[in-house]
Amino acid sequence: MIKKFSDLLIGRPLANEKGSREKYNIPFGLAIMASDAISSVAYGAQEILFVLIVLGATAYQWLTWTSLMIIGLLAILTISYIQIINAYPQGGGAYKVAKENLGAKAGLCASGGLIISYILTVAVSASAGADAIISAFENLAPYKVQMVVLLIIILTVLNLRGISESSKIFALPTYIFIFSMIFMILYGLFKYFVLHIHPEPMYTVPDRTVSGITLLLLLKAFSSGCSALTGVEAVSNSVPNFQEPSPRNAKIVMALLALLIFFIFGGTSVLAIFYTAVPLEGGPTVVSQIAFAVFHKSFMYYVLQFSTATILLMACNTAFTGFPMLMYIVGKDGYAPKQFTLRGKRLGFSVGIVALSFIACLLVIFFQADTHRIIPLYAIGVFISFTLGQFGMVTHWVKTKGKKWKQGVVINGIGSVVTLCTTLIILVEKFTEGAFIVIILIPLFILGQLKIKAHYDKIAAGLSVSRLRLNKVDFKLHYEHIIVVPIASLNKASIGALQYAHSLSGRVIALNISPDTEAMEKLKRRWNQLNTDMELISKYSPYRAVVTPLLENIYQIADEAGDKEKLTVIVPQFMTKEPWSGLLHNHTGLFIRESLLKKGNIIVATYPYNLDQEEDEEE
Amino acid sequence: MIKKFSDLLIGRPLANEKGSREKYNIPFGLAIMASDAISSVAYGAQEILFVLIVLGATAYQWLTWTSLMIIGLLAILTISYIQIINAYPQGGGAYKVAKENLGAKAGLCASGGLIISYILTVAVSASAGADAIISAFENLAPYKVQMVVLLIIILTVLNLRGISESSKIFALPTYIFIFSMIFMILYGLFKYFVLHIHPEPMYTVPDRTVSGITLLLLLKAFSSGCSALTGVEAVSNSVPNFQEPSPRNAKIVMALLALLIFFIFGGTSVLAIFYTAVPLEGGPTVVSQIAFAVFHKSFMYYVLQFSTATILLMACNTAFTGFPMLMYIVGKDGYAPKQFTLRGKRLGFSVGIVALSFIACLLVIFFQADTHRIIPLYAIGVFISFTLGQFGMVTHWVKTKGKKWKQGVVINGIGSVVTLCTTLIILVEKFTEGAFIVIILIPLFILGQLKIKAHYDKIAAGLSVSRLRLNKVDFKLHYEHIIVVPIASLNKASIGALQYAHSLSGRVIALNISPDTEAMEKLKRRWNQLNTDMELISKYSPYRAVVTPLLENIYQIADEAGDKEKLTVIVPQFMTKEPWSGLLHNHTGLFIRESLLKKGNIIVATYPYNLDQEEDEEE
Repeated sequence: MIKKFSDLLIGRPLANEKGSREKYNIPFGLAIMASDAISSVAYGAQEILFVLIVLGATAYQWLTWTSLMIIGLLAILTISYIQIINAYPQGGGAYKVAKENLGAKAGLCASGGLIISYILTVAVSASAGADAIISAFENLAPYKVQMVVLLIIILTVLNLRGISESSKIFALPTYIFIFSMIFMILYGLFKYFVLHIHPEPMYTVPDRTVSGITLLLLLKAFSSGCSALTGVEAVSNSVPNFQEPSPRNAKIVMALLALLIFFIFGGTSVLAIFYTAVPLEGGPTVVSQIAFAVFHKSFMYYVLQFSTATILLMACNTAFTGFPMLMYIVGKDGYAPKQFTLRGKRLGFSVGIVALSFIACLLVIFFQADTHRIIPLYAIGVFISFTLGQFGMVTHWVKTKGKKWKQGVVINGIGSVVTLCTTLIILVEKFTEGAFIVIILIPLFILGQLKIKAHYDKIAAGLSVSRLRLNKVDFKLHYEHIIVVPIASLNKASIGALQYAHSLSGRVIALNISPDTEAMEKLKRRWNQLNTDMELISKYSPYRAVVTPLLENIYQIADEAGDKEKLTVIVPQFMTKEPWSGLLHNHTGLFIRESLLKKGNIIVATYPYNLDQEEDEEE
Repeated sequence: MIKKFSDLLIGRPLANEKGSREKYNIPFGLAIMASDAISSVAYGAQEILFVLIVLGATAYQWLTWTSLMIIGLLAILTISYIQIINAYPQGGGAYKVAKENLGAKAGLCASGGLIISYILTVAVSASAGADAIISAFENLAPYKVQMVVLLIIILTVLNLRGISESSKIFALPTYIFIFSMIFMILYGLFKYFVLHIHPEPMYTVPDRTVSGITLLLLLKAFSSGCSALTGVEAVSNSVPNFQEPSPRNAKIVMALLALLIFFIFGGTSVLAIFYTAVPLEGGPTVVSQIAFAVFHKSFMYYVLQFSTATILLMACNTAFTGFPMLMYIVGKDGYAPKQFTLRGKRLGFSVGIVALSFIACLLVIFFQADTHRIIPLYAIGVFISFTLGQFGMVTHWVKTKGKKWKQGVVINGIGSVVTLCTTLIILVEKFTEGAFIVIILIPLFILGQLKIKAHYDKIAAGLSVSRLRLNKVDFKLHYEHIIVVPIASLNKASIGALQYAHSLSGRVIALNISPDTEAMEKLKRRWNQLNTDMELISKYSPYRAVVTPLLENIYQIADEAGDKEKLTVIVPQFMTKEPWSGLLHNHTGLFIRESLLKKGNIIVATYPYNLDQEEDEEE
């Protein structure tokens, strides 16, 4: 029944051979890759305003400058990433670039940053998506956390099913969002400059609490706005997913993406100034206020809110493809648990999908789905991996000295300096708001990943048998088998186990530990009825413990055994189909097995005696 | 470390031989047996007043009549129980008497009633104890539930230690309570009648809301007051615990106990009338109000409150001895899980103690430690077992026709009619207040107990080997052993398992299921390097599942095997000491083992390969 439910929810298993995916053309690739980056504008301008609003009405004039700085950063990042596409046509995420050029620890640092930013992409995008819906339908506000968790769970199920089949549909909301945003910006400008409609601000701008702009405040606003740039790395990570010539197509998509971010982010900032959108905690978002000022509550307003919500969910979804793939690559290198490298029955990396969803849900619940509180943690992780990727590229050019390597050094050199500075600005400005958590987590991640690698290496080394030694393995050796059968009484299960043991070896010891002298005597009497020369060791346990003295006796036999002797313990166990029968019996067998196996040189077997079957046969 | 902590908390293990308990003399036996019964007066009069208070001031006049009815019932019960002591000098609880005379189902019904009443004794007594403390120290009121749970946990730990050693001390609070209650009653009467001090009531009596007494109201008050009689059965259950001549001593204690209940319960009721104690939800208890009226906040008031709390905790404690003992007796008969029949390391029945404490704590939390809400569930369970015990005795006299059997029939006949009527009254009057829960639970208990018995009987029958057949067991038979070793690759663990398997049988099959064709090819190449004639079956799993196809292949081998062939599966498993290593590996071995054992005719062994040990040896 569980299987049927799982089939219904997740779909039937897919064979390995169905694994080849469709390749992206330019418009489709843009739609898939753009969602994360473009959707960031839904909260980028708002985050800047949250910082600058302490200046009162002057905030809007400085919004222009901050936005320009961010657009400048976007230009640098775009050119730098086109360099990465040139150098890594097989796809070069920050992890790969940093690991290959700067060493394993830099790679792990980048992967740590990426892991954090993927998790936060889910938490932030799903929460911002809910914000967009709530801006339109205010009475949903009390159910925000439940809504966000539900959205994440739906995405989890879709991704466990594998969404590649239907993903062409996903291009639609991205384009609806892009075109409605462009339409909003153009129509907003038209209304303002041509129709000269200058509506009153809906919300009053708070009075200034700070006398004037300072460099610190500007940097803080800049660091907040950097959240608008998260997601631009997506294209360079998945160059091979594009149709041939894939590097060229990827570069075109990258350039188009930058243009779109430039236009939509810049346009939103400009409209926020003209229509005086006010950042509100818990109220409608800045984009929603602009949309309302431009369209009022017309059809277009709802189209915009819904497409904002949809594109945010798609951004969320990019993490659901990116994170499991990252964990697969890291896991293949041995730095993450091997479970992440196994494809589920629908070919997705189920463990990664479920882990991502679980942690993101915890974060959403902990932060009560408040994007404004989660974002400070977000940008820092992204920019750490940006920086490492750029530095890695500089090293790459210097090492390889390929075509146009000097140009590469200059471009990625500028990129690395700028991203490093941005990382430091975000780190300092957002330190107490949450960036410190990332600074604590990343070293822990690196340490954990190294420990995992060491563990796997140790096991591989401990287990490995070289090819040359394989044909020297001796299968002719004959152990002398000593078999111990722990018994509580003589019944069909224990007699069966003794018969089985006797057929394997001439040296069988029945071991009995009893807290009850009467039962002990009875066992001895019955044992003497048996027609056997097997040895019965029966010991009284005055403290009623059974497991410990049993283990001690077995260890003693093991210690006395010689090199050629092999000790096997056979535990008789009756089996019954009744599911609740486990509650009615002691699980001595289980304890014994786990403890003995830890010793490492004792083989533990379970001899099952099926009560239900016996009955069937007799009937 | 866990063991050390457990030793500190529970004490070191005690040997079986330390099991003989001290026998009670009359004063000590009275103190131990009396706590449950006498402590009931702490809430008995109050429960009656809660019902009658709808009559306003007239309530107090009817309190006298209700109390007289209950004292009459007490007299009948006392005489009936002395009969049980006569007939069952080895101790006859309601379960035993009902089972032996009325059949197994009646016994199980009685044991169901007793189980419920023991659990409720703990919940009610601990909550009432907290009430007594809170009456004296009102600012503890918000922490009542926590206090009650803590008290129950302390009692649990004490009982796991085994409290017999120190139980002589327990006589002290009982006698302090008895003497201070007697002193309060005498001094209260003295103040009222001799000193003519008639204090104003502290709380105003509510106006009457019901025009006059009705039979229904009186019966309801009576059924509420019956909670004062819970615990009178304790003596008859533990006759053998008394010094010789034990039946005589038990009967003396029974009579003394009845006298004490008569005097204390009667006296409290009388004082409640003279000093106009008002039943209050959440306020001071009736006994506390009387004590305050008599002693004001003098030293004696606090002595009384504390000894009330202490005796209630001791009443609680009687359940901690009674319940595990009952479960032991029922478990020995096969009607309860066998775990209840095992003595813990301190000789107490740990499972019973912990189970009792756990369920009682849940009840306390659910009912927010409100005695008034728990009591309706309480009395019904007790009176069901009273009734069955009495009917059992009537049958006993008729069957045995021993000395004075006619007198016995008359006494227990009256007892059975009266207890049956009381049970019915409580059932009807308290039905909606909680008695219906008991009516649902008891049949479920009986059903569950019968199912448990059937399960054990089936297993015993399925496993048993008669004495005559023991010496016909053939230890000369030689199975043909087929051994399957599931392997993923050739490493030290799997090669070790193959060597071990080969030394046991000439027919070893290495079974490989691989979702990865490359790994499969590699295994085959390496297998060919081996100097062996063992068979390798390697199968490709297009859906990536490993466990299911592995099991299917093993089942197929099992099905093809003949009667003389015995299939053993040996699972290689590497062991490492690192505690978190379990998180980094798949637990395929575990799944395989559990699934194969269910099949019932395949022996499953685990071949451990200890990585840490190997390293030690090499170093």
